[in-house]
Amino acid sequence: MMSDTLIAEKPVVSAAEAALERRYREPLAGADHPWNAVIQSLVDHRTVRAFLPKAVSEETLQVLVAAAQSAPTSSNVQAWSVVAVRDPARKARLAHLAGDQKHILEAPLLLVWIADLSRAAGIGERAGLTLEGLDFTESFLIAGFDAALAAQNALVAAESLGLGTCYIGALRNHPIEVAETLGLPRKTFAVFGLVVGHPDPARPADVKPRLPQAAVLHHETYDLAGQAEAVARHDAHSLAFRAEQKLDATPWSQQLIGRLHTVAALKGRHLLKQALEKLGFALK
Amino acid sequence: MMSDTLIAEKPVVSAAEAALERRYREPLAGADHPWNAVIQSLVDHRTVRAFLPKAVSEETLQVLVAAAQSAPTSSNVQAWSVVAVRDPARKARLAHLAGDQKHILEAPLLLVWIADLSRAAGIGERAGLTLEGLDFTESFLIAGFDAALAAQNALVAAESLGLGTCYIGALRNHPIEVAETLGLPRKTFAVFGLVVGHPDPARPADVKPRLPQAAVLHHETYDLAGQAEAVARHDAHSLAFRAEQKLDATPWSQQLIGRLHTVAALKGRHLLKQALEKLGFALK
Repeated sequence: MMSDTLIAEKPVVSAAEAALERRYREPLAGADHPWNAVIQSLVDHRTVRAFLPKAVSEETLQVLVAAAQSAPTSSNVQAWSVVAVRDPARKARLAHLAGDQKHILEAPLLLVWIADLSRAAGIGERAGLTLEGLDFTESFLIAGFDAALAAQNALVAAESLGLGTCYIGALRNHPIEVAETLGLPRKTFAVFGLVVGHPDPARPADVKPRLPQAAVLHHETYDLAGQAEAVARHDAHSLAFRAEQKLDATPWSQQLIGRLHTVAALKGRHLLKQALEKLGFALK
Repeated sequence: MMSDTLIAEKPVVSAAEAALERRYREPLAGADHPWNAVIQSLVDHRTVRAFLPKAVSEETLQVLVAAAQSAPTSSNVQAWSVVAVRDPARKARLAHLAGDQKHILEAPLLLVWIADLSRAAGIGERAGLTLEGLDFTESFLIAGFDAALAAQNALVAAESLGLGTCYIGALRNHPIEVAETLGLPRKTFAVFGLVVGHPDPARPADVKPRLPQAAVLHHETYDLAGQAEAVARHDAHSLAFRAEQKLDATPWSQQLIGRLHTVAALKGRHLLKQALEKLGFALK
């Protein structure tokens, strides 16, 4: 009996393997995966859409921005900005533009991440120069990627403080109106929002399953073999997740098709390129 | 005498304020910034370009990819992949395409992050459907942002394990040749690389200064007031940093101008849009 008890006290799987299995809904091949509190926090990520009516302090905002600024930036150009929106009326306007997402109203803070070539253009102007490079697709991408890397660092920092977050890609449904609402200058573009707040423990979020590593990780060269089988496994796992969440029984690949099958499914974003040109990006 | 000793033992600034001042080269306004080990790791980020000849294990790679896959993805489309390159000949080829960056040769692992609409296209094909949405700029951006968020999570995970990293944006100098080297299918694009390895302690990297928060953080609406002054302060801080690193005395804003002033300074990336179209992105 005593030895039975001792065996039972030994965990069957480590915290690492348990967290990885929760993410993939199947064990990850291999063993002894390196692990620490940072990785635990990253792998445990969940999107939060239910918040308590409790403010995020100015000091916390400063730290999120410091984490964001500490992310790498292409050639150190730092081609991004962030607008912190707390005013309920402005949040309501942005929530409406983003397809009436209620969690934007509920969260005390909406960070809007800006691909920003305006700062560089201004530096050029003050030096009496036109920066020809700004007119190319490459410069727009640098600004967009800089903003994305920064935003993700802010998200990781926020989650480490027990805050919940949700990206708001739907700000791209109406880029011109979003720019007007935020008073954005030319050559800036709101790539996405990030709501930040204190998660409501009464409405907890869960870890969403992801594709098996076989679908996304390639060794040396891209390998299409195994894609179909990995997608089929993910479809099965996504159905199990959706049943738990009391969502309809649409497998992942069908949802994907629904989002990309028609122009209408893009919810206005088929006009994004034209909007970017209006906002001052030449996209040569 | 005793009380003097006690006063001396009390730190003048906290770990938080010290790390923030190291990043900005000036104190961050306010006090009592929330802090923990995750935020310390984010704010302490430095780019590493000097590595020991020591492999990164398969288990570590799996964990980096698990962290990457745990990042948010637009509408859960998971429109990215990653190619792990360890083969010295392939790394040498990619290093050459990226402007002969020696750290790509030195690092044992190069992760190439792929904006991937090929998987979605394949899912559509197997269902007998053409996904019209894939042809729009918006879908390309979703794939690019998904890849960027994933890559940044992998970077944060790698640094938490004591590994060093450096993004390789110069893979975009020759996108077609990079695609050939990695056997990429249509509708995929290598957005950037990330070298990963064990930092060489004999050649340590330092924390690079960033713009004052006044330049990047806006409240409620975008505010141009204060930009010029913040840039001037950053120029002064960047000169101090460059003097320490024994680099030439070019202030940050002059470097920025140098990178964007002419088409030639883009090092081939002025042709990126045409390359993307050849790779199967319609960019409507």
